[in-house]
Amino acid sequence: MSKTDIGIGLVGSGFMGRCHANAFRSVSGLFDLPGTPALRVLADATQDIADRAAGQLGFDRATGDWSDLVSDPAVDIVAITAPNVLHAPIAHAAIKAGKTVYCEKPLSTTAAIALEMTQAAEAAGVVTMVGFNFQRNPMIRLARDIIESGEIGEVTGFRGRHAENYMADPDAPHSFRTDPAGGGALADIGSHIISMARYLLGPIAEVQGDCTTIHPTRPIRPGSSDRAPVDVDDMTHALLRFDRGVSGSIEANWAATGRTMDLSWEITGTKGALSFSQENMNELLLHSGQPGRSGYTRIEAGPAHPPYGNFCPAPGHHLGFNDLKVIEVAQLLSAHMGGENPGPDFREAYEVQRTVEAVQTSHAERSWVTL
Amino acid sequence: MSKTDIGIGLVGSGFMGRCHANAFRSVSGLFDLPGTPALRVLADATQDIADRAAGQLGFDRATGDWSDLVSDPAVDIVAITAPNVLHAPIAHAAIKAGKTVYCEKPLSTTAAIALEMTQAAEAAGVVTMVGFNFQRNPMIRLARDIIESGEIGEVTGFRGRHAENYMADPDAPHSFRTDPAGGGALADIGSHIISMARYLLGPIAEVQGDCTTIHPTRPIRPGSSDRAPVDVDDMTHALLRFDRGVSGSIEANWAATGRTMDLSWEITGTKGALSFSQENMNELLLHSGQPGRSGYTRIEAGPAHPPYGNFCPAPGHHLGFNDLKVIEVAQLLSAHMGGENPGPDFREAYEVQRTVEAVQTSHAERSWVTL
Amino acid sequence: MSKTDIGIGLVGSGFMGRCHANAFRSVSGLFDLPGTPALRVLADATQDIADRAAGQLGFDRATGDWSDLVSDPAVDIVAITAPNVLHAPIAHAAIKAGKTVYCEKPLSTTAAIALEMTQAAEAAGVVTMVGFNFQRNPMIRLARDIIESGEIGEVTGFRGRHAENYMADPDAPHSFRTDPAGGGALADIGSHIISMARYLLGPIAEVQGDCTTIHPTRPIRPGSSDRAPVDVDDMTHALLRFDRGVSGSIEANWAATGRTMDLSWEITGTKGALSFSQENMNELLLHSGQPGRSGYTRIEAGPAHPPYGNFCPAPGHHLGFNDLKVIEVAQLLSAHMGGENPGPDFREAYEVQRTVEAVQTSHAERSWVTL
Amino acid sequence: MSKTDIGIGLVGSGFMGRCHANAFRSVSGLFDLPGTPALRVLADATQDIADRAAGQLGFDRATGDWSDLVSDPAVDIVAITAPNVLHAPIAHAAIKAGKTVYCEKPLSTTAAIALEMTQAAEAAGVVTMVGFNFQRNPMIRLARDIIESGEIGEVTGFRGRHAENYMADPDAPHSFRTDPAGGGALADIGSHIISMARYLLGPIAEVQGDCTTIHPTRPIRPGSSDRAPVDVDDMTHALLRFDRGVSGSIEANWAATGRTMDLSWEITGTKGALSFSQENMNELLLHSGQPGRSGYTRIEAGPAHPPYGNFCPAPGHHLGFNDLKVIEVAQLLSAHMGGENPGPDFREAYEVQRTVEAVQTSHAERSWVTL
Repeated sequence: MSKTDIGIGLVGSGFMGRCHANAFRSVSGLFDLPGTPALRVLADATQDIADRAAGQLGFDRATGDWSDLVSDPAVDIVAITAPNVLHAPIAHAAIKAGKTVYCEKPLSTTAAIALEMTQAAEAAGVVTMVGFNFQRNPMIRLARDIIESGEIGEVTGFRGRHAENYMADPDAPHSFRTDPAGGGALADIGSHIISMARYLLGPIAEVQGDCTTIHPTRPIRPGSSDRAPVDVDDMTHALLRFDRGVSGSIEANWAATGRTMDLSWEITGTKGALSFSQENMNELLLHSGQPGRSGYTRIEAGPAHPPYGNFCPAPGHHLGFNDLKVIEVAQLLSAHMGGENPGPDFREAYEVQRTVEAVQTSHAERSWVTL
Repeated sequence: MSKTDIGIGLVGSGFMGRCHANAFRSVSGLFDLPGTPALRVLADATQDIADRAAGQLGFDRATGDWSDLVSDPAVDIVAITAPNVLHAPIAHAAIKAGKTVYCEKPLSTTAAIALEMTQAAEAAGVVTMVGFNFQRNPMIRLARDIIESGEIGEVTGFRGRHAENYMADPDAPHSFRTDPAGGGALADIGSHIISMARYLLGPIAEVQGDCTTIHPTRPIRPGSSDRAPVDVDDMTHALLRFDRGVSGSIEANWAATGRTMDLSWEITGTKGALSFSQENMNELLLHSGQPGRSGYTRIEAGPAHPPYGNFCPAPGHHLGFNDLKVIEVAQLLSAHMGGENPGPDFREAYEVQRTVEAVQTSHAERSWVTL
Repeated sequence: MSKTDIGIGLVGSGFMGRCHANAFRSVSGLFDLPGTPALRVLADATQDIADRAAGQLGFDRATGDWSDLVSDPAVDIVAITAPNVLHAPIAHAAIKAGKTVYCEKPLSTTAAIALEMTQAAEAAGVVTMVGFNFQRNPMIRLARDIIESGEIGEVTGFRGRHAENYMADPDAPHSFRTDPAGGGALADIGSHIISMARYLLGPIAEVQGDCTTIHPTRPIRPGSSDRAPVDVDDMTHALLRFDRGVSGSIEANWAATGRTMDLSWEITGTKGALSFSQENMNELLLHSGQPGRSGYTRIEAGPAHPPYGNFCPAPGHHLGFNDLKVIEVAQLLSAHMGGENPGPDFREAYEVQRTVEAVQTSHAERSWVTL
Repeated sequence: MSKTDIGIGLVGSGFMGRCHANAFRSVSGLFDLPGTPALRVLADATQDIADRAAGQLGFDRATGDWSDLVSDPAVDIVAITAPNVLHAPIAHAAIKAGKTVYCEKPLSTTAAIALEMTQAAEAAGVVTMVGFNFQRNPMIRLARDIIESGEIGEVTGFRGRHAENYMADPDAPHSFRTDPAGGGALADIGSHIISMARYLLGPIAEVQGDCTTIHPTRPIRPGSSDRAPVDVDDMTHALLRFDRGVSGSIEANWAATGRTMDLSWEITGTKGALSFSQENMNELLLHSGQPGRSGYTRIEAGPAHPPYGNFCPAPGHHLGFNDLKVIEVAQLLSAHMGGENPGPDFREAYEVQRTVEAVQTSHAERSWVTL
């Protein structure tokens, strides 16, 4: 094989770390890329944890010290799936070392820190990407193509939501998710619908939100009978106005009993409309208006919607959640090798985080906030 | 037949007038009521129009003067489907004459006038009812029963919408719907989702809304090339806080391409959830959480959900929109004969209208409004 | 009113009798017909039963003797909702008296008797109609229009079903439904899917079926602990070949736990496809194949689909089961007054019954049967 | 890493070959297996093709001669995705060499040859598996668990289908799919619904089918204007009787315009029902009958349904088609290492093929065929 090897260093081996590793392992069998990822170094909190994970995930070596990973010349891309509070130091070190940086969302614990990371990366000229993997879905790309082509006319309204149920139980314990630094439903999953709204309709100009803590206390750790107050939102509803003059609303809710992945939206235009939910991630509903035949068409994902065809030559065979990560990694590798970077890069992730904070401020001040 | 005849006087013979007449004609074959409606007098703008409609709809006599109808001793119930601006004078006259008053929504053009109507009716002790027919649906009653029984635990969130497409076309002309006195999407159809939210979850304490005029001008009349500015909303998104401590949001949108009757909502509780859309009016989605079997159950309307059984002894046979009006009329007749009045009565309709105006005020003042 | 009164005589006041009566009461407010139905005589098994029903349903007089009804000169149309075994004698008497005859399905207990009824009606030249009301649905008419226009190309396949659950319980007792003369799932509800298949695709040439008795005994009457053998099918699957050269299959099943009204079918063509289920009776799924936009379109019923507009001027407002009977009665009255008879008339109902018996024969003989 | 390497030899690098390779690459990051697959040898029709594929898919070496692959001592498992006609010789050679054999469906071009393969494998005692990957879906395993637990009572009926549209176009050309040896819609995709029916309900005792060639000629090769007759079915409908006494029907249709992956079935029981379609592969519909709450519950795939949790710790994140192949490969590797073999093994695949041929025979003889 004459292809260049691209050295991967992965920090973190939890749910998302595993997901990254598997995507890097799968991608070259599915995408025809100019380089091949090589799983070089895995770092985690201790050498033991890292050793075990490196064995299972197929990395060449393991370390309990992420700075060792960052400085390893065999590592070309630093993938960060460590706790949110570590994103900034790891990213700054990787940027300094001139590496491509691939970071899980949220980019950082505050928008201010995210901005510093962005400015550092831009000054250094390194490639960055942030893991908003839901927008890698071919149906989301199709939606944007339809909007940009004018097929649904001028956009007139937006209604979005990301609702899940993983914190619906009042006895779901405190964790990094309930840490006011970057935690709460709006930051955790509301960022997905904000990111997707921006991807589809562009920047948001003004927001006014209402943040609710449904369960005022939670166990301090799993199974504990000691409870501590919760300082973040379980549910946020917000009004939005986009730069392009369109209004709308979003909901972020991690206590939404009955919902496991309702990352959904409807976009209305003067000539048509689009509707999507991640609960049916392989379809996009498109409304168009032939008289007497008017109705939503359920477009099924297929080879007509790139890069679906990289996974399967026949329509209707369904991509899964992990496949979205493979697409993300393919885009990352391509950008690393000098190809186009479709983002979201650090700057875009900073903009999302800034929007999250604007909603929180609007709640605290009970007024609209201009971005 | 030993049953009492109940004299019906109907003002207006448009879409809703016809719908009333047909409901009065059908109801006694379907419901076992203590009295039988007799179609006595139909009034419309002119004698000619009234004559024609009375013939088709089966009324005993017709008049071009609604006050003649109101004062006719053969009329026991005055049903008002006239233009909104006439609701108040007709209702006041009927109340004065001691008649039961059945009025289409909105109760009046402003909340202030609606309050006067309410106070007059309460002072006179007459029975009143307002035509929010969507909440007559057996599945909506089932939803309220489920909520009140605690079956979904404590309610934690609400998300509602009434979206249709009948004003999506920028060339849809001005009409009473675009008259700032009582017009706009929020007043016209947003009132339905507000009414239903109150029916299911009780009073609303605070609102903050964003009203958008999508099409700034419209033809002054059908087919005209002269256009005049539009002073009402085509779409409104609003944040809500209920008295019971639950937060949520609503959207009202009459320019929602792709939607013909998306009067829909989701109510989340600590133990379950409910979801409904009028686009599938014969089903209610209920989520409950047996491990490994968790998911929304699509409950189909049937005889277990009164008064479905009055229409059909077998489940799955579907009620239609006009059947909801028959249920409404059965409830009206029962209340008229001394039975319970499930409402919405004038007071409830006033509360809905007051909420609509609070959202409009919150938009104008860019701040939360307390009700 | 200058319109002719059309005298209605109704035999039977059960579920279907009530449904007829209500349809006759509603129709003139909804359809602009040249005549107005007048509820003249109601007959039932005894004078008492008939009196009570006539009072509730609004008939002028009642009788315990159907021949008295048939011979009444005030009766122009004889509507038969009596037990199946009485269809033939009542119909023959009505035909002899020159009346229009409107009969519930099945036309009779055997195809042979149904043929005699057909021949008598044709010889007398009277108008006949049989109550296959599901095909009155505007969406079914739309489906036929789409097929006949060639919009889905040449038809290549059919798959149909009528599944309900009303006999799923092994303790559901014997009744007229389990009488071998005209009983069983195939005759009772399979006749609906056969009728609809013929309406959409024309005559059936050959059949091969498999009839299954799921519950071999049932209580002899409601609540009885005495059980008697069942001699009819609970479920039948059959292969079909249509005259036009298309193949397919149907299922009739009245023990289909989970189904309340799955009268459904899919028709495949070379250029598109159609899919329908009575469980979503206000929609028709149409597939057409724009590249990259391919998928089923959910067409919602609306004024573009006659006669929906007679019930409501706005789309998305849903017709119900009882509205289908109103459409049927409007077509009956129009045919009675000399208008076109869209059927199904007695001959068509005989053809359906003959097809049912052919399937039963094919099962008994374990071979294909040619019609 | 102390885990054993398991040498993989893959014959064929088309759609399915790629799919196998990717599954072998992914599996050890997702499943905790006692051994790790090592991609040793890839064989294809020529050395050139094999070289190119081996490079892209990450195999150690390539060969244009499959017998070279089979005899390589580094190969422990022979995976066969070559043309159907080669399945038998490759499998026999691999069996002779004592290798585990993993073969794509159909096992062979005739049931007779499939039986020889089965007998050879059983005599040699080698592990075999056949790629009916759709039944690896956790929701299908859940369905079988529900059936076997008695949760839906006694099974009373079955209705299944596998419909796709890939041969709907009359200009779709001849290929191995239209070769009478193993071709046609029933053999190609009907085998999936037969296999799944057997997985869920056990052996089939009797069949009676109707096979239809919709397009009598097709181009002899892609784009050619020369056409040759088609000797296989485009669509087959068949009646089934299972050994357990349940009746039902299936359809196989590769000309089903509008369907891309309608591998679907409904199973009815005395106490409940199950419904599934591969078009919504991450959900299973379960009907159970609480009074007034009766309806289908849409169970969403999640960690409660093994092995979903191997792919993602959170529910609602969706598995995709390629993930089913990973599950299959995990089961294969486990069986190879001495674990339980859940099948389908060669014998089961032979039974499926025998059933396909029985349906074809029943069509030719126009009679029921007993298996």
